[in-house]
Amino acid sequence: MLPMKMLEENLNHKVSLLLKDNRVFEGSLAGYDEYMNMVLNDAEEIGEETRKKLGLVVIRGSNVVRIVQLDSSGN
Amino acid sequence: MLPMKMLEENLNHKVSLLLKDNRVFEGSLAGYDEYMNMVLNDAEEIGEETRKKLGLVVIRGSNVVRIVQLDSSGN
Amino acid sequence: MLPMKMLEENLNHKVSLLLKDNRVFEGSLAGYDEYMNMVLNDAEEIGEETRKKLGLVVIRGSNVVRIVQLDSSGN
Amino acid sequence: MLPMKMLEENLNHKVSLLLKDNRVFEGSLAGYDEYMNMVLNDAEEIGEETRKKLGLVVIRGSNVVRIVQLDSSGN
Amino acid sequence: MLPMKMLEENLNHKVSLLLKDNRVFEGSLAGYDEYMNMVLNDAEEIGEETRKKLGLVVIRGSNVVRIVQLDSSGN
Amino acid sequence: MLPMKMLEENLNHKVSLLLKDNRVFEGSLAGYDEYMNMVLNDAEEIGEETRKKLGLVVIRGSNVVRIVQLDSSGN
Amino acid sequence: MLPMKMLEENLNHKVSLLLKDNRVFEGSLAGYDEYMNMVLNDAEEIGEETRKKLGLVVIRGSNVVRIVQLDSSGN
Repeated sequence: MLPMKMLEENLNHKVSLLLKDNRVFEGSLAGYDEYMNMVLNDAEEIGEETRKKLGLVVIRGSNVVRIVQLDSSGN
Repeated sequence: MLPMKMLEENLNHKVSLLLKDNRVFEGSLAGYDEYMNMVLNDAEEIGEETRKKLGLVVIRGSNVVRIVQLDSSGN
Repeated sequence: MLPMKMLEENLNHKVSLLLKDNRVFEGSLAGYDEYMNMVLNDAEEIGEETRKKLGLVVIRGSNVVRIVQLDSSGN
Repeated sequence: MLPMKMLEENLNHKVSLLLKDNRVFEGSLAGYDEYMNMVLNDAEEIGEETRKKLGLVVIRGSNVVRIVQLDSSGN
Repeated sequence: MLPMKMLEENLNHKVSLLLKDNRVFEGSLAGYDEYMNMVLNDAEEIGEETRKKLGLVVIRGSNVVRIVQLDSSGN
Repeated sequence: MLPMKMLEENLNHKVSLLLKDNRVFEGSLAGYDEYMNMVLNDAEEIGEETRKKLGLVVIRGSNVVRIVQLDSSGN
Repeated sequence: MLPMKMLEENLNHKVSLLLKDNRVFEGSLAGYDEYMNMVLNDAEEIGEETRKKLGLVVIRGSNVVRIVQLDSSGN
């Protein structure tokens, strides 16, 4: 399975993104492109003990370390 | 929704940009290009307890971490 | 043996990835592309004394330092 | 408005450049290219309490974070 | 002698790789590509006073600082 | 004036280069290419209170922050 | 003089390379390519008070800050 295929299969499903600055975002994957730029719907920034609601967010792909599938019904 | 499409839909609407150096800018998205270089109108740099008015600003895309839609009437 | 060939031979076999931020992931290599973006199945993040189960994960290739073959029956 | 268009409209007008190393330069924008390399005329490096005159300067675009229009008569 | 030619001449000979994070790997050069991604056979990670056997390893080229020929019979 | 044009006009004139690691080099600009790689003749590395003569030097463009014209007779 | 031309003229002559991690290597320039990857013969790593003989070495160009000509008979 190509990495982009895994993203495609998780469209409209919940994912967790870890960024290079150690920020973590969770949200529904609304879109992506070939640079791994991603759009998250109903995004939240996850802190040690807090969750901050952000709504619609674009993450620039160059900051992404890791994408975790949170909603395995996507496969 | 492609990331560039989300930017297009937010043209002339208010967005918040988080940069790699942890600076935050808010302003009306006046333009962007394929590198995620962005033009903000009526831009402000948001500090802990301060807001500094900057006016018209270009942000170089390579510094951008995250773009948040602040004005959901854009969708 | 080209580096991409080594990845191909380890498809569906267990590998260990070391990232630039010193995180270590282990999992079954489910896919990769020409940027060394990789999909791991049954992935775990390996800490000093802990293993955290993550499930299906995409690792962005630009963060990868080193890939170690853990299951030599792959060759 | 494309980011490059904003630069074009500010040719021969005063701008402020913030670089990744937190240096700030002000000067008259004498030229630029597609990498956001920029030529400043009568450039000054702006410190906390000092301004150092540098004259004609080229800034390599990869170091640029933000360009602020200081002279709105350019639009 | 082009850099890639030096790599070619050291195929199946022992080399030492220094990475940006100061890790050092030694092993038999089993392959490489145009990005200086490299495959090492019988690789070991060399610490101050330790050697850790890793087996078959891929090193991503963007992390490489320096490649030293350890087995001059390769030329 | 395109940034490359400014470099062309300063060929064989004295310039000062500031690098990302805060090193400063002065010398006569003997050549450059499209990556802003530069050749300096009679180059000196400028420290707080010292000047170290280096002779003929190539600076890799990716390290360059800023180029200052020291000899305005070049224009 | 193009930067690559300066390298060509120093083939088989002694050069000093400064890298981004502040390492310094000296050796006879045996080859180079368009990325400024370089092959050094009889290379030595130069420390504060030590010189460590390394023999044949490839330096990845992305790490190079500065190349100094040590043997001006090359011109």
